Amino acid sequence: MRLTRRYRFSASHRLHTPALSEEENYLLYGKCNNPYGHGHNYVLDITVEGPVDRHGQVAPRAPLDELVQERVLARLDHRNLNEDVPELAGSVPTTENLASIVHRMLVEHWNLKPRLARLRISETDRNTFEMEASGDGQ
Amino acid sequence: MRLTRRYRFSASHRLHTPALSEEENYLLYGKCNNPYGHGHNYVLDITVEGPVDRHGQVAPRAPLDELVQERVLARLDHRNLNEDVPELAGSVPTTENLASIVHRMLVEHWNLKPRLARLRISETDRNTFEMEASGDGQ
Amino acid sequence: MRLTRRYRFSASHRLHTPALSEEENYLLYGKCNNPYGHGHNYVLDITVEGPVDRHGQVAPRAPLDELVQERVLARLDHRNLNEDVPELAGSVPTTENLASIVHRMLVEHWNLKPRLARLRISETDRNTFEMEASGDGQ
Amino acid sequence: MRLTRRYRFSASHRLHTPALSEEENYLLYGKCNNPYGHGHNYVLDITVEGPVDRHGQVAPRAPLDELVQERVLARLDHRNLNEDVPELAGSVPTTENLASIVHRMLVEHWNLKPRLARLRISETDRNTFEMEASGDGQ
Amino acid sequence: MRLTRRYRFSASHRLHTPALSEEENYLLYGKCNNPYGHGHNYVLDITVEGPVDRHGQVAPRAPLDELVQERVLARLDHRNLNEDVPELAGSVPTTENLASIVHRMLVEHWNLKPRLARLRISETDRNTFEMEASGDGQ
Amino acid sequence: MRLTRRYRFSASHRLHTPALSEEENYLLYGKCNNPYGHGHNYVLDITVEGPVDRHGQVAPRAPLDELVQERVLARLDHRNLNEDVPELAGSVPTTENLASIVHRMLVEHWNLKPRLARLRISETDRNTFEMEASGDGQ
Repeated sequence: MRLTRRYRFSASHRLHTPALSEEENYLLYGKCNNPYGHGHNYVLDITVEGPVDRHGQVAPRAPLDELVQERVLARLDHRNLNEDVPELAGSVPTTENLASIVHRMLVEHWNLKPRLARLRISETDRNTFEMEASGDGQ
Repeated sequence: MRLTRRYRFSASHRLHTPALSEEENYLLYGKCNNPYGHGHNYVLDITVEGPVDRHGQVAPRAPLDELVQERVLARLDHRNLNEDVPELAGSVPTTENLASIVHRMLVEHWNLKPRLARLRISETDRNTFEMEASGDGQ
Repeated sequence: MRLTRRYRFSASHRLHTPALSEEENYLLYGKCNNPYGHGHNYVLDITVEGPVDRHGQVAPRAPLDELVQERVLARLDHRNLNEDVPELAGSVPTTENLASIVHRMLVEHWNLKPRLARLRISETDRNTFEMEASGDGQ
Repeated sequence: MRLTRRYRFSASHRLHTPALSEEENYLLYGKCNNPYGHGHNYVLDITVEGPVDRHGQVAPRAPLDELVQERVLARLDHRNLNEDVPELAGSVPTTENLASIVHRMLVEHWNLKPRLARLRISETDRNTFEMEASGDGQ
Repeated sequence: MRLTRRYRFSASHRLHTPALSEEENYLLYGKCNNPYGHGHNYVLDITVEGPVDRHGQVAPRAPLDELVQERVLARLDHRNLNEDVPELAGSVPTTENLASIVHRMLVEHWNLKPRLARLRISETDRNTFEMEASGDGQ
Repeated sequence: MRLTRRYRFSASHRLHTPALSEEENYLLYGKCNNPYGHGHNYVLDITVEGPVDRHGQVAPRAPLDELVQERVLARLDHRNLNEDVPELAGSVPTTENLASIVHRMLVEHWNLKPRLARLRISETDRNTFEMEASGDGQ
């Protein structure tokens, strides 16, 4: 049984890499390269997977919410991804890199019985990024 | 080819297990343990899978709708899951248990060519439960 | 300037009036008359109206949220509208009557500068009830 | 007849006023006061009103889109509202103030036959700001 | 009290007027002028207004649904608006003209106690047409 | 990492096969068999999969958008699927067959580094068709 629980956060970012020239940055990232940044309402879907326990749940809701709140939302919600998130220092805050960071934030402190199965972040209605979870944290 | 067809139903429930004390019930189920129950607009997504037939369909829509209507919606829509659904007697009507019941309701009478591949129930916009279908009924 | 702020709650109800016979009740309320009740995810939109203050706001968000949480959501969320809400005693818990109750709950304790302008409750995606706010409380 | 046409843009902002102390700013604007800003996917609904012309339209779509694109979206989309929008200089970029600016951007160059009737901006699913249009530009 | 009830229908149309040349038609209607037509999933919102009756309703749901089904949906759903709808003969099937037709279809046979207050049709997520209802039928 | 990017198009179709009698056609396709056709707002979700490159992306957005625009949307948007799409000649324009065509349109000219992983088309909110991508084009 899989449970997907939805969370939301708002953040700003600017896509720019020092590895490329100004022109190349603009060509690659388009409007997302604007110097002062912009922002999004992100949607985060966390999927956990496991057997249904004798109380009828694949995962109690409260510990999952606490983990996501403490490890992820408290660090990303209403933040500037270029300035406020040490885990993203040195990398471009694309939603791909953001998804990897969120994955790491979760697995490092994963203490729930069901495994973390999938992680999905939507930047807008038009762009959704998804990764199967893996690694030691689950 | 997979076709996912969406259905909706409204129902009420109360989460409470006699295996736990009053305090433990409240700790585990939170507001869902309120004595007189509450309710939701559930969204049910049924996914069938198979080859496309010579009329261009993975499954004719009418027999699928009839099966879901007769086996599932007629028994759950505008019902109290604690009182009105014999299949849930003795178990806590969490959406996990509800998904298992709906799966069984469908596979027991499955008479369609494409196999039942997946079943998904959303309790609210924030909670979606999903199970890969399996077993003899498909 | 108008600000509409959206809240959500889940509740159960049964539509039944002692003024009508069993048959008349079923004819009038249909499936909503099922004896053990059913439920919905309600969406509540509160609209306030007034000038924009020197801090750029028609209404600070925190006091509005506190008022709605304390007067409305704490009394309706995860409740049985027939059993748990004294304000609805003696009336059928249709969403029309629910809207009137919510209106009264708000205006009786309205302590915000902008006036309460409109109140909207959706029972499902298909049914939305709306009333212009009025009276002394605003 | 009224036509409401929906546009979208993404932007970042920080809510902070020099008229208040650090503590007062945080108390008033909450997480929106975070020093490096955050962002949103804004939804902009423009409503025009007038008679239906002999070609069956209240307003041809192309000139309306061009006006909104040129006067509004080109200046706000993928921008930082604190840094990139001269019209907001000296005011806090709340969505209330943003709505007033967008209204002014539109009426100053309004050259369409139907009048601008209403303007609505959603910051998130939970917050929608609405103003009836007025003034000489329509 | 106002109740807005949502209905859906799918239809095709081509926007073209014999009053204009081929070039002018294309300039005015754009892709909607493509010779073989295209289509949409329309959303129809019907708003009725009146006092709440002693059974707690502004309008019983069943007679409203029957009226809309019989007068509107049965004539428009899964239809070609250029070919199948006599009321649109001689006019371009824009959504503005469609809204006027639906308004007439409803008021001509209006037999409900609450008045028809508003009618709204969305052609896509981006285009919504709205008219206050008026006339003898209400 | 998977990126799903959402596109939209509007088209009309009629479901009818010469292999069946009039009655059989109507029985099989229901209202979709109406002689003059009807239409939908289709939603197309394209999923690509691959490693994240050193600029933080699984796929640059611009080339993907260009490919989908040129190979798919330019041929389907605001079109009549029975008349305007040579690839569908001789087959019934069900959404199953439409999905296969779109898949072929994409893989034949696929020139992006990440592979095409999945393709999903929704005809309405109630019907979604999905196929895992496969073949030489990826």
